[in-house]
Amino acid sequence: MSYITMSPLELKDELDIITAQYNTHKARKLSLNMARGKPSREQIALSLPLLDCVNSSSDLYSEDDTDCANYGVMDGIIEAKRLMGSIMQQDPDLVCVCGNASLNIMYDLVCMGFMRGFDGETPWNQLDTVRWLCPVPGYDRHFAIIEAFGFEMIPVPLLENGPDMDLVEKLVESDASIKGIWCVPQYSNPSGVTYSDKTVTRLASMSCAAKDFKIFWDNAYCVHHLSDDNQDFVADIAQACEAAGNAQRYFKFASTSKITLPGAGIAAVGASKNNITAVKKHLSVQTVGYDKMNQLRHVRFLKDYDGIVEQMRKHAAIIKPKFDLVDAKLTQGLADTDIASWTKPHGGYFISFDGLDNTAKRTIELAREAGVTMTGAGATWPYKKDPHDSNIRIAPTLPPLEELDTAIDVFICCVKLAALEILLKR
Amino acid sequence: MSYITMSPLELKDELDIITAQYNTHKARKLSLNMARGKPSREQIALSLPLLDCVNSSSDLYSEDDTDCANYGVMDGIIEAKRLMGSIMQQDPDLVCVCGNASLNIMYDLVCMGFMRGFDGETPWNQLDTVRWLCPVPGYDRHFAIIEAFGFEMIPVPLLENGPDMDLVEKLVESDASIKGIWCVPQYSNPSGVTYSDKTVTRLASMSCAAKDFKIFWDNAYCVHHLSDDNQDFVADIAQACEAAGNAQRYFKFASTSKITLPGAGIAAVGASKNNITAVKKHLSVQTVGYDKMNQLRHVRFLKDYDGIVEQMRKHAAIIKPKFDLVDAKLTQGLADTDIASWTKPHGGYFISFDGLDNTAKRTIELAREAGVTMTGAGATWPYKKDPHDSNIRIAPTLPPLEELDTAIDVFICCVKLAALEILLKR
Repeated sequence: MSYITMSPLELKDELDIITAQYNTHKARKLSLNMARGKPSREQIALSLPLLDCVNSSSDLYSEDDTDCANYGVMDGIIEAKRLMGSIMQQDPDLVCVCGNASLNIMYDLVCMGFMRGFDGETPWNQLDTVRWLCPVPGYDRHFAIIEAFGFEMIPVPLLENGPDMDLVEKLVESDASIKGIWCVPQYSNPSGVTYSDKTVTRLASMSCAAKDFKIFWDNAYCVHHLSDDNQDFVADIAQACEAAGNAQRYFKFASTSKITLPGAGIAAVGASKNNITAVKKHLSVQTVGYDKMNQLRHVRFLKDYDGIVEQMRKHAAIIKPKFDLVDAKLTQGLADTDIASWTKPHGGYFISFDGLDNTAKRTIELAREAGVTMTGAGATWPYKKDPHDSNIRIAPTLPPLEELDTAIDVFICCVKLAALEILLKR
Repeated sequence: MSYITMSPLELKDELDIITAQYNTHKARKLSLNMARGKPSREQIALSLPLLDCVNSSSDLYSEDDTDCANYGVMDGIIEAKRLMGSIMQQDPDLVCVCGNASLNIMYDLVCMGFMRGFDGETPWNQLDTVRWLCPVPGYDRHFAIIEAFGFEMIPVPLLENGPDMDLVEKLVESDASIKGIWCVPQYSNPSGVTYSDKTVTRLASMSCAAKDFKIFWDNAYCVHHLSDDNQDFVADIAQACEAAGNAQRYFKFASTSKITLPGAGIAAVGASKNNITAVKKHLSVQTVGYDKMNQLRHVRFLKDYDGIVEQMRKHAAIIKPKFDLVDAKLTQGLADTDIASWTKPHGGYFISFDGLDNTAKRTIELAREAGVTMTGAGATWPYKKDPHDSNIRIAPTLPPLEELDTAIDVFICCVKLAALEILLKR
């Protein structure tokens, strides 16, 4: 039954029922966590053989005879460039393989713009105002980087084919202080949207007032399909930028954080010939080189693109049932209440959930009090300020299925309770 | 015989002899490298068992039950903090264990001053001029960081007890734009000098015009003794700063790069309570966390301070004969020529060599043409500009003893040739 059409009396009755349910949940003193996009222990186990790929009796030389156990080679061993290039659709010569986190490279490149500037333009620290486009809902750690540099974030709605390109084009055409945009182009965090070919073309070819405008293309979920059918693929931003005569416009990022071991993976950046040269020069000031032993572990474990596809199938076998469970339970619990909508992604790590306006914070609060930790409300918006207070990121991968089942029961109950409280105030 | 007291005719005769020697060396078409402070293969072999300490059947949890194979814990697992704290003379609670390179943390902290500022003072990017004290001869990668941020480097002579403190005190007292100083306090790169207790006290207690003046204390060679006798030790900068009422003045750095595997080690920063909190907050924007698997490898392999001491004894057994050989050959070949002096360090990775003024570049050039690569002349000075063109860094660790023997023969010949060329021009 739809909550929206209920009479005040019906709402009051429903509130009593749901409050009773909530108190029952609360009495169980649960401690469940759906806060971050963390793989489960079962997923971690898939990658443990990685640890055996390099040991004291291994050959520790890369294929061009680089000693991976000593200093040398700032931009990654050639086989690691090839491996990362294969998932990034990038020529290995235009790839720099870095440390354990792509977030760190993204930060380093925003910092490079701040310190040195790009394409011969003024370094951003010398400008009065720098603005950044942030498709929403989006990734909180992206926003935190921009905030740390003191740049102004402009939210742009993320629609079903990518960012609202009419708005993006209008903004970048007239405002030279807009220097970049965050993009998670495939299975975006949190909504699971994949950018259409047209969106990619428009991003690559749009007219930008800032000559040094940069697309930060965080393809974090480029091989993270939930099944063999229904896979999304995103067009190559490098090719699109080149075709449009804007070869310097993009930086591509990827990592194995959610392919192998989070925090102990390898990450990479791809860029145009000019830019990858500039990036390597910049990075060579801050490091002698990244961990080549871990690069060696990864190429020996994953081998090549096919090896990665095989590994991702194993991940999907573990996490798809979790995504399915969440969707089934949300449908069963909320579909006919008219107080919620949520995404049904084909890959990635998240489900984006929208409740009624002004209920997200309250829902998260209720869930926390009942022992279920979710991503904070507002986290998917710049400055943690969701103007509707409606969006919630659901991260279903970490808990075992049975815990997830319980957590979603609690969550649904909290969504209903928060909605009823608001509806009764109307 | 002293070159300095030779008559022009004697010099000419000697030039003929040395030129003939040089041509003989050149004809051998050597390819030897003494450019960087890299451990030898024999040293690398000491740490290969490290690779077996974490494998697919290992317990992957830290002692506080953190899953080292998943996301979480930005500042390092507790046992890694304890291990790094033990060589840094730092309370583990005031340590942040980071990635594979201490250079990267130093860069990040200079960047933090640039972006955010320290101690509530103005961020350095908003100042017209930022200056930095650089004891010379010093480490080229330190200088490259300061240059990348566009700060002005002021060379300060490194004397036998540390930087020329009369000059340092005079400079920092009157110039608020001087925001920091590089220090390699024990077995400094390249001269092997260890700062005296008095130098440490003066650095900690001197009056600085800049309230946010920082000592960047790169204790890279803190446990890198060449023998059990004749070990240098440096006083604790943290204690000295606290005692002087300047607890915020220092950042300490150390790594296992030359204890275990260069490029695949772990690094750490130590600071006051206030500063380590600020540092962690800053770093948590750029990373979810560092590689905890590698931290686990290190604590399981090295175990504790005694384990590190034991490991460093094994390194010393390999590299001391190389330092001894260089010193013996330089003494035999150059002691009575009066054209050169060099250091006899008790630890670290380098010998600092001084030829006659205006001969360093020419010596390196001659050596390169004869197939011996050395650190570039000038590298030990800011902007690569040695005003005397006399200092050369000798890095004896990488080549096997027999290669080192040959390389030093070539080097001595080049030193003589460059000196004779200059003396004949007088």
